[in-house]
Amino acid sequence: MNKGIFITFEGIEGSGKTTQGKLLAEKLKKEGLKVLYTYEPGDTEAGRHIRKILLNSEIKINPLCELLLYFADRVQHIEEKIKPCIESGFIVICDRFTDSTLVYQGYARGISIDLIKQLNKIVLDEFMPDLTVLLDCPANIGLKRNQKINKKDRFEMENLAFHEKVRQGYLKLAELYKKRFFVLDATESIDKIAEDIYRKVKSILSHGL
Amino acid sequence: MNKGIFITFEGIEGSGKTTQGKLLAEKLKKEGLKVLYTYEPGDTEAGRHIRKILLNSEIKINPLCELLLYFADRVQHIEEKIKPCIESGFIVICDRFTDSTLVYQGYARGISIDLIKQLNKIVLDEFMPDLTVLLDCPANIGLKRNQKINKKDRFEMENLAFHEKVRQGYLKLAELYKKRFFVLDATESIDKIAEDIYRKVKSILSHGL
Repeated sequence: MNKGIFITFEGIEGSGKTTQGKLLAEKLKKEGLKVLYTYEPGDTEAGRHIRKILLNSEIKINPLCELLLYFADRVQHIEEKIKPCIESGFIVICDRFTDSTLVYQGYARGISIDLIKQLNKIVLDEFMPDLTVLLDCPANIGLKRNQKINKKDRFEMENLAFHEKVRQGYLKLAELYKKRFFVLDATESIDKIAEDIYRKVKSILSHGL
Repeated sequence: MNKGIFITFEGIEGSGKTTQGKLLAEKLKKEGLKVLYTYEPGDTEAGRHIRKILLNSEIKINPLCELLLYFADRVQHIEEKIKPCIESGFIVICDRFTDSTLVYQGYARGISIDLIKQLNKIVLDEFMPDLTVLLDCPANIGLKRNQKINKKDRFEMENLAFHEKVRQGYLKLAELYKKRFFVLDATESIDKIAEDIYRKVKSILSHGL
């Protein structure tokens, strides 16, 4: 049995990563491929409880507590779902992963990037995606899209400058890890973006990474 | 204003550490001293949510997830309650702290002690108690006491061998950190133990550590 691959979707709020991740999952499933669509934080039983704490802006948590909760969720997610699925040949598509932690908690909230990397190393043993799709989007456009659907959690309440820092953080990571990142202009049409992602993934499935 | 001191109570389930911690807090309060009695996990709002995950044996969590949840709870607890109280001159009495993590997750569950120490260093910046009261108790005696009051959470369901490992882990720590640990025989009478702890703490308050 062949091993599967691990694809993550990243981007600021309103960049369309959830829409695109789901579209890709559906297309691949229709072709008869084994696909797991999942997300962070919260796609395990423990994760659902952790997610409630993370996204409820009425519960007071300091930046380090927040960081550790993300890692707790992630380590459970990896061991319970992601790794077993990859081992049995699934294409695992995950909405947000460690890059989100680096940009939200690190670049944007100001926790030491080095500390986050140390946690990655000692806790996750540097387990990383094979491909990361980054939907790049100016913060004002992303936030406007979100306002339309009226979402308001701990992150969506942050201001424009915060989300612009997140965006710049993502672009920095994409520059650092060119081989893993596939960056797309999120202001293009949904269909065009979906087609580009689909082709990229099909090419990886045919010819390897 | 003088800084306060930080006292932790440790021991296996049924060792009497909660009873003794509370007795000490009451005595010192009666003398007009400023005292905060607190516990881990769970004595902040975020902590109460984290505690529910940790102690509910029906929620699946792997050892690393569990470890990170303890640290998330601890870092919130330290910043929100412990440090501010110590800064304003309180005697902070805490039921369980980092030593519990070292013995339960490390010595007993088998997570690398080195990994836990690394987390202590990078997350807590090695913030430690001034005094740790260890109520040493053979596992079979502790468990029998607990059965009487019919407690059953994730840890209380573990077997005798597990709790004996915990006990040995505590004794190892007490040997390593002789200056910080005050070890008492938990099979003595409640009054005798309470008196010994009270004298030790009064001596520290009068003459320093």
